[in-house]
Amino acid sequence: MRVEIINTGTELMLGSVLNSHQQWLCRELSNRGLAVARQTSVPDTGREIECAVRASLSRADVVITTGGLGPTSDDVTREIIAQMLGRSLSENAEVLDHIRTFFLARNRPMSERTAVQAMIIDGAVILENREGTAPGMAIHVEPNPFRSGGKESWLIMLPGPGRELRPMFFGPVIQLLNRVFPVRESFACRVLRTVGIGESILQERIERALGEQRASGLELGYCARPGQVDVRLSARGSGAAEQVAQAEHILRTELGDGIFGTGEETLEQIVVGMLTQRKETLALAESCTGGCVANRLTNVPGASAVFRAGWVTYSNEAKRQLAGVRPETLQRFGAVSEDVAREMAAGARHVCQTDYAIAITGIAGPTGGSAAKPVGTVFTALASAEGIQVRHDCHSWDRLTFKEVTANQALNWLRLLLQKPKIG
Amino acid sequence: MRVEIINTGTELMLGSVLNSHQQWLCRELSNRGLAVARQTSVPDTGREIECAVRASLSRADVVITTGGLGPTSDDVTREIIAQMLGRSLSENAEVLDHIRTFFLARNRPMSERTAVQAMIIDGAVILENREGTAPGMAIHVEPNPFRSGGKESWLIMLPGPGRELRPMFFGPVIQLLNRVFPVRESFACRVLRTVGIGESILQERIERALGEQRASGLELGYCARPGQVDVRLSARGSGAAEQVAQAEHILRTELGDGIFGTGEETLEQIVVGMLTQRKETLALAESCTGGCVANRLTNVPGASAVFRAGWVTYSNEAKRQLAGVRPETLQRFGAVSEDVAREMAAGARHVCQTDYAIAITGIAGPTGGSAAKPVGTVFTALASAEGIQVRHDCHSWDRLTFKEVTANQALNWLRLLLQKPKIG
Repeated sequence: MRVEIINTGTELMLGSVLNSHQQWLCRELSNRGLAVARQTSVPDTGREIECAVRASLSRADVVITTGGLGPTSDDVTREIIAQMLGRSLSENAEVLDHIRTFFLARNRPMSERTAVQAMIIDGAVILENREGTAPGMAIHVEPNPFRSGGKESWLIMLPGPGRELRPMFFGPVIQLLNRVFPVRESFACRVLRTVGIGESILQERIERALGEQRASGLELGYCARPGQVDVRLSARGSGAAEQVAQAEHILRTELGDGIFGTGEETLEQIVVGMLTQRKETLALAESCTGGCVANRLTNVPGASAVFRAGWVTYSNEAKRQLAGVRPETLQRFGAVSEDVAREMAAGARHVCQTDYAIAITGIAGPTGGSAAKPVGTVFTALASAEGIQVRHDCHSWDRLTFKEVTANQALNWLRLLLQKPKIG
Repeated sequence: MRVEIINTGTELMLGSVLNSHQQWLCRELSNRGLAVARQTSVPDTGREIECAVRASLSRADVVITTGGLGPTSDDVTREIIAQMLGRSLSENAEVLDHIRTFFLARNRPMSERTAVQAMIIDGAVILENREGTAPGMAIHVEPNPFRSGGKESWLIMLPGPGRELRPMFFGPVIQLLNRVFPVRESFACRVLRTVGIGESILQERIERALGEQRASGLELGYCARPGQVDVRLSARGSGAAEQVAQAEHILRTELGDGIFGTGEETLEQIVVGMLTQRKETLALAESCTGGCVANRLTNVPGASAVFRAGWVTYSNEAKRQLAGVRPETLQRFGAVSEDVAREMAAGARHVCQTDYAIAITGIAGPTGGSAAKPVGTVFTALASAEGIQVRHDCHSWDRLTFKEVTANQALNWLRLLLQKPKIG
């Protein structure tokens, strides 16, 4: 089965935005055994969109478009495709109602143009948009005038905003694909998420451990982010599920604690989940990460049950005044030091009366480094009932990557501590 | 002039890596007035690469490929293109020498397969690779058997790794493009970033204001993110720069405060810049945004000069204990209330002794809402020497978008206050 993706948007062609849909859709489709054979981006001009959709329909069983369903004048995908397929557009009362309710609930004025989003292509399956106004559409193109022999295709049109596209894909799109293309060959896939092991060393260890499995058809894929690498195990055929399960077992033995989760799980979800289960609480005192750890933790629904409070002590006064770091410690060792990290963690745990506290102080750059403490220097302290541990690292990255890597490391450190059985 | 890009790589189609080349190349090309008309990604299979290159050569004046020039078995671009164009490949002694020297200088063994990178397509211009081993190639396809009338094209093949591709693009590729396509018409482009105006209303206002300019060739583009919309003005021809400048002037009059910056500027950069210039300081007390505002502010180098401290008061105890909110206020009005926001802002400004403080308390969801205070309810307080103002909104989005939109609004509110002349 051949799948192609077409991302529309002049902003993509101008390089104004990153095409994150490509990666996301490709990954979600391939995790379901549907490899994408081609992805195309075109600007929001009728001619380019039509030309790309025609070409994809001449080759593929499923063509997925993203973007161009909004209310503005450069949202032309709906009209272009209707015209190309010789189908009419008509206003759908139910969709229009949904759009009106959406604006009403948000107390926002609805402009006249917005109603265009209720125009549905004749014969299309409406894909509900729970997070926005423009519904998606799925069209069974049969016979397909662009494909030799008129072989049928499905054309699926998704909205541009990611927060609308993603739930629509997971819901109605997956349902539709499962219905119209029932799985013929079994396919199994599992993503293991690792933290704290460098990409090339991880790859060497994995490929040594899984030599036999690879020879009998197991496929491996890697996706590296700062401080994290995802490992993708997949197999096809009758024994696919067993093959992937066996490979996962081998990797869990080989990598142990290095695997923190599976699928889409984030480190912060794991940590919030563990704290919730243990009925324990956390406080943070962040300096160089500037709220990055707090922000990630509070992205997890339910974080409020375990995350009491965080400080962003960006100035020396704040370290003293909020976290209770002693002036002499700051003066003697400097704000970026083991001792300040230790006192920040102790202060946060004491003031907030939590089971754990994490404190981070370092130099995010690009300036502020010295020979003794170069940019990237960071001290992380972890306080618990058992005392305070401090680690010293150097994460020589750009400012934003430094924050991510340092936050990952701190969250992972807490995760490893929480894996131990609870005392008492 | 028509430019197309083809990114090769099976890892792109599996979603294992993000296609950052697309954005980078598109931006660099369009900043030079060369709009990319189509971008395609294909896996590392000969058939898909050939099919995509043929199609692009049938349409475009310049076709740029990335990837597939390395030494491993899935690097097939070089052979496929030579075959497709009916040209031979031969080893280039100078390139082979460069590769040998490269390995020698790094004290690394050179595998036998590496020499394949010295194979050059007959008639190609060699694009030196200063950061790696595989050179790029530029081929003048003339006559072009794939294009109607045999119209010439240039096919430019770049290596996959970004750190090799980028200097190669800035050096030999730009030189070549300037030589073979000397600029005939001038091009001007300007991106204005707006905040707080809905996409469709913004567009209505802009298109009404710029009706005349659009009729005489001004192009408009939009890129919407939660709470923010970028407007791109561009024009070609002899009066391009004046046309864009005039349109910017009209929009600045029309939208006033709604425009917060240009190009790649972020709201947090603008706010940090304004505070720095005014030598003023800021403290934060965030509840429902969970450190999102602090994290964004501290992404800006130099934020430490103006951002003293932030609290993430995620629990009632933290609101009381850290921000000094009175227990009776919490009890009487609830944590999500105008009065609590006011006391949090007052507490943060007082304790941290800053010029400004922002406090945010609300319900990020997905749970925790009620009929009186639904999910999305948020109170934002802004404290300054002139007193404390509180606003009440409902941002009914998913949790992460709620945080972004609320943070945008808070930063924008402070920006508007900072635009007023400083008193005293």
